[in-house]
Amino acid sequence: MNCKNNEELANLVEEARVYTKYGKLVDYIPALSRENKSDLSISIYNLNGEFFYAGDYLKKFTLQSISKVITLALVLMDKGESEVFSKVGMEPTGDPFNSIAKLESNRLNKPLNPMINAGALAVTNMIPGRNVEEKWNKLIHFVAELTNDNEVSCNQRVEKSEFETAFLNRALCYFMKQHKVIDGDVEELLSLYTKQCSIEMNCRDLARIGAVFANDGCDLETGKCIITKDIARVCKTFMVTCGMYNSSGEFAMKVGIPAKSGVSGGIMGAIPQKCGIGIFGPSLDQTGNSIAGLKLLEIMSKRYSWSIF
Amino acid sequence: MNCKNNEELANLVEEARVYTKYGKLVDYIPALSRENKSDLSISIYNLNGEFFYAGDYLKKFTLQSISKVITLALVLMDKGESEVFSKVGMEPTGDPFNSIAKLESNRLNKPLNPMINAGALAVTNMIPGRNVEEKWNKLIHFVAELTNDNEVSCNQRVEKSEFETAFLNRALCYFMKQHKVIDGDVEELLSLYTKQCSIEMNCRDLARIGAVFANDGCDLETGKCIITKDIARVCKTFMVTCGMYNSSGEFAMKVGIPAKSGVSGGIMGAIPQKCGIGIFGPSLDQTGNSIAGLKLLEIMSKRYSWSIF
Amino acid sequence: MNCKNNEELANLVEEARVYTKYGKLVDYIPALSRENKSDLSISIYNLNGEFFYAGDYLKKFTLQSISKVITLALVLMDKGESEVFSKVGMEPTGDPFNSIAKLESNRLNKPLNPMINAGALAVTNMIPGRNVEEKWNKLIHFVAELTNDNEVSCNQRVEKSEFETAFLNRALCYFMKQHKVIDGDVEELLSLYTKQCSIEMNCRDLARIGAVFANDGCDLETGKCIITKDIARVCKTFMVTCGMYNSSGEFAMKVGIPAKSGVSGGIMGAIPQKCGIGIFGPSLDQTGNSIAGLKLLEIMSKRYSWSIF
Amino acid sequence: MNCKNNEELANLVEEARVYTKYGKLVDYIPALSRENKSDLSISIYNLNGEFFYAGDYLKKFTLQSISKVITLALVLMDKGESEVFSKVGMEPTGDPFNSIAKLESNRLNKPLNPMINAGALAVTNMIPGRNVEEKWNKLIHFVAELTNDNEVSCNQRVEKSEFETAFLNRALCYFMKQHKVIDGDVEELLSLYTKQCSIEMNCRDLARIGAVFANDGCDLETGKCIITKDIARVCKTFMVTCGMYNSSGEFAMKVGIPAKSGVSGGIMGAIPQKCGIGIFGPSLDQTGNSIAGLKLLEIMSKRYSWSIF
Repeated sequence: MNCKNNEELANLVEEARVYTKYGKLVDYIPALSRENKSDLSISIYNLNGEFFYAGDYLKKFTLQSISKVITLALVLMDKGESEVFSKVGMEPTGDPFNSIAKLESNRLNKPLNPMINAGALAVTNMIPGRNVEEKWNKLIHFVAELTNDNEVSCNQRVEKSEFETAFLNRALCYFMKQHKVIDGDVEELLSLYTKQCSIEMNCRDLARIGAVFANDGCDLETGKCIITKDIARVCKTFMVTCGMYNSSGEFAMKVGIPAKSGVSGGIMGAIPQKCGIGIFGPSLDQTGNSIAGLKLLEIMSKRYSWSIF
Repeated sequence: MNCKNNEELANLVEEARVYTKYGKLVDYIPALSRENKSDLSISIYNLNGEFFYAGDYLKKFTLQSISKVITLALVLMDKGESEVFSKVGMEPTGDPFNSIAKLESNRLNKPLNPMINAGALAVTNMIPGRNVEEKWNKLIHFVAELTNDNEVSCNQRVEKSEFETAFLNRALCYFMKQHKVIDGDVEELLSLYTKQCSIEMNCRDLARIGAVFANDGCDLETGKCIITKDIARVCKTFMVTCGMYNSSGEFAMKVGIPAKSGVSGGIMGAIPQKCGIGIFGPSLDQTGNSIAGLKLLEIMSKRYSWSIF
Repeated sequence: MNCKNNEELANLVEEARVYTKYGKLVDYIPALSRENKSDLSISIYNLNGEFFYAGDYLKKFTLQSISKVITLALVLMDKGESEVFSKVGMEPTGDPFNSIAKLESNRLNKPLNPMINAGALAVTNMIPGRNVEEKWNKLIHFVAELTNDNEVSCNQRVEKSEFETAFLNRALCYFMKQHKVIDGDVEELLSLYTKQCSIEMNCRDLARIGAVFANDGCDLETGKCIITKDIARVCKTFMVTCGMYNSSGEFAMKVGIPAKSGVSGGIMGAIPQKCGIGIFGPSLDQTGNSIAGLKLLEIMSKRYSWSIF
Repeated sequence: MNCKNNEELANLVEEARVYTKYGKLVDYIPALSRENKSDLSISIYNLNGEFFYAGDYLKKFTLQSISKVITLALVLMDKGESEVFSKVGMEPTGDPFNSIAKLESNRLNKPLNPMINAGALAVTNMIPGRNVEEKWNKLIHFVAELTNDNEVSCNQRVEKSEFETAFLNRALCYFMKQHKVIDGDVEELLSLYTKQCSIEMNCRDLARIGAVFANDGCDLETGKCIITKDIARVCKTFMVTCGMYNSSGEFAMKVGIPAKSGVSGGIMGAIPQKCGIGIFGPSLDQTGNSIAGLKLLEIMSKRYSWSIF
């Protein structure tokens, strides 16, 4: 079962919007701290072609950690599973997304999975290309294909703000460089990673990417298979086991769908064989997820029996 | 799609059996170290009533960690989610199942989830009853209902062997007792927990329990709903995020079904709306899972497109 | 230089006593939580035979962690350094005295040093004797020799209270039993360890033991060498590097003498070639040391240039 | 008691030199990996003015971690204890010198002590001056005063080699920058820290610096007090509690003198009121200390009763 019309969706959004007041805007990335805390919007692409939305679904926001799934798909397409997973693990972790301690105690010094920052940096480091520009072009072209929007780009103000304050990511990179998880120039990698996090789009575009994953890697309109079915499945698996930061387990229990969040307040959902979802709600809970976005998904999952379990 | 006949299943078992030689029998529970390393058997209950098997599917083995899912269901039925999850978390962890370090560093001193030993002990501590005997009767009656077998019982030789060597579990219990995660007598709790781990059945019974979870909590034959749909879903969620010890993430990626393993070499699978699975293969990999059992599930998941992702 | 008369000492004690109000009584051992928070007393045995005191120096208190140095001396005398240090390390640690995490991450699973609980339990486990009674007799006889007081004994009320609530120590023991750092019966070991912690004496007796360590192991009055010079030196070394719980480093910097504290509020000092010190002040700081006792030692160390550095 | 003549010293050096074969040269700083593994030399300045030596005591080597004590003294002279210890702790740690995990788990995110890399970087960051050049001039002038040698300088080949491969130190710096333990430009700090580690001198110079610390901060020849008595004491205290990397506890027990080692194979000793010691022996043990240098000090400490405990 699924959402039937925009009115129904608008009602659910209003029900969830009251939770925005219990969260707060991200504080460690200056350029993101100026959003409107009570914002909440959603877009849904059903695989049968229907499109629903509620709230200001054309407002742009940056992907932040949501981009981790996209680069993972790109790099898996290019290098294959065995090379990628020689550099990054597959296991969920109870530690925060920016933790460094496990890198030290883990005998392999390998990041536990591609959804924590250390793992995502190792994945971005594998994007093909001879320099940052080539790699960036490869990535943004891939995003343009997924969204069917050649205008998609990165928000330079956010990019600059993040690059200058990315001290923890620098620490993670240099640690991994010491242990040969990554090679090459750290500042170049950080530059690329920050651009990736600053890719900007609206809920509709995000729902469209979600729909590609939900549809086994193929575009709904063109029918073109941008990602293989196996890699789409791998990405959805990581979205379930570690897509929602430190509350991935709770989210799996309460909502039960593949989803990935970012500290901008975005959430991309991909319900296998059903629909793609894009949400934007910048008021965050303590683990860094959109507080009202989570609530909205919880309400909808109960109502529409979305859980895959 | 699913398995069609016993011949097909027997061929897949033979293909997987060769992997038994790369694993080893559990060494820290003396009574379990005398199994036949090359054993591998499987039973499948399809929700349409079909039953398939291969190997010695009537050979009995003890549940060990598989019992964690069963007590979780029992305790959730009795206490409800909010009480249970005030004592144990919902998040997967990158640490081993018997680790104690996270209990100390976690500011709540609460076990991360009910599938690691610390969490399972906290769950068993909530089984209703005024003493060990009452609690045990409650549990074994529940298992009898799930298997539709009133003869089901615990293996006293294994129970005795485990109880005497359960030093790490004692350490976990006393640590949690200090931090008020559990109350009551530790030796009594360990006695109950060891009995629970020593519950003995064969692959057919185990597949039957898996089928109840797969069938939203209801018995295939009698139609009786033993577990609510919501609690069946919660249990399946934990089986995906943390059911296969430290390789739960890899299992989710390669197989993608709710499953729970035990160091006896048993695996219970529960594919939503499809089937229940019982496997026995005592040769274990490094993380404590049946090495050939995993391989068999991997082969079947690819062949029958079982992944829920 | 050193203290000259009781009046001078009484003045210093009054100066330090005001700090008792900033601390608090130990709360996790019920029998110790009923002391008088403003108590502060001291005894000093100079190696030239002079004896000074201030405050109620005859009031009895239990040794608690101070006993760790005494059992270390006893066991080193009996087993020798190489056997003892095969079971317990020599390195200070930044972790709390009752921490278990390092036991897990340390590849040897060996306690870091004999002054943390895990290490002290491993040392007590090496006291010679066929059963708890023989071991206890060995230990209390040794303490009687050090204090020259055959009446010294343990406080049974404190012993009982501690034994019943020693959950963390039980956790440490079972963890070490699993990893073969200790063998034998855990409850017996805990019984012996709790008795050891509950040995009761006054400041004068404690100063006398300190004087034996300060005097290279020999009794001031009888001249008998109870401990070898080498072992006395080893014990004083541990008192400096890890004698004052998690503020051992700060204490070395601010006071700079071998000393060992207990959560009863006792402190034993042993200034090489100078004097033995016994202090009792049950108001504790956050790390578990007598708050006014530390202050008193700091004042005296500055005034009399006691630091060995 | 102390060494009487060069012949005696030469014999002890030969006795210790055989241990050089059990160690190995440092491997992670390319420029240091080309030393002669069997080298071992020593210089001793007695506070009465006597000077003894054995081996090639004029051969130059870089200070590496030995420099940590010198910058600590300089910064304590300039800022005072309370400012310095608001940025870095005083407690020994059981973790390796380059560990980052404790920075994360420690609630204050403050390095545990000034002898581990994180703490030393925080100390170097406090050297007074408006830019790297001014800070460096301040430091090298201080070293020139301590050695009474205006020619002392840094080895630019080593400096360059270390700067380029200082990935772990970069990780530590960026982590501390995130948590506001340090401010300013990380690359500038690393440049200064690497210069400091690359300061080059011979055993005689090093023994001279040791003698200043042993002599309460005052130069033996000129009588000038370069460091206050209190700060000299603080430095010697840290040399005992955490001067010898992860075997500081063992060194305190077996040798028992204030000493600081570097991965170049240098060791500076400072026996209060007795003598300063400079040792060079580039073959290292597993914890990063000169393997034969340690043995030489152990032999001498036993022979001359050097232990301060």
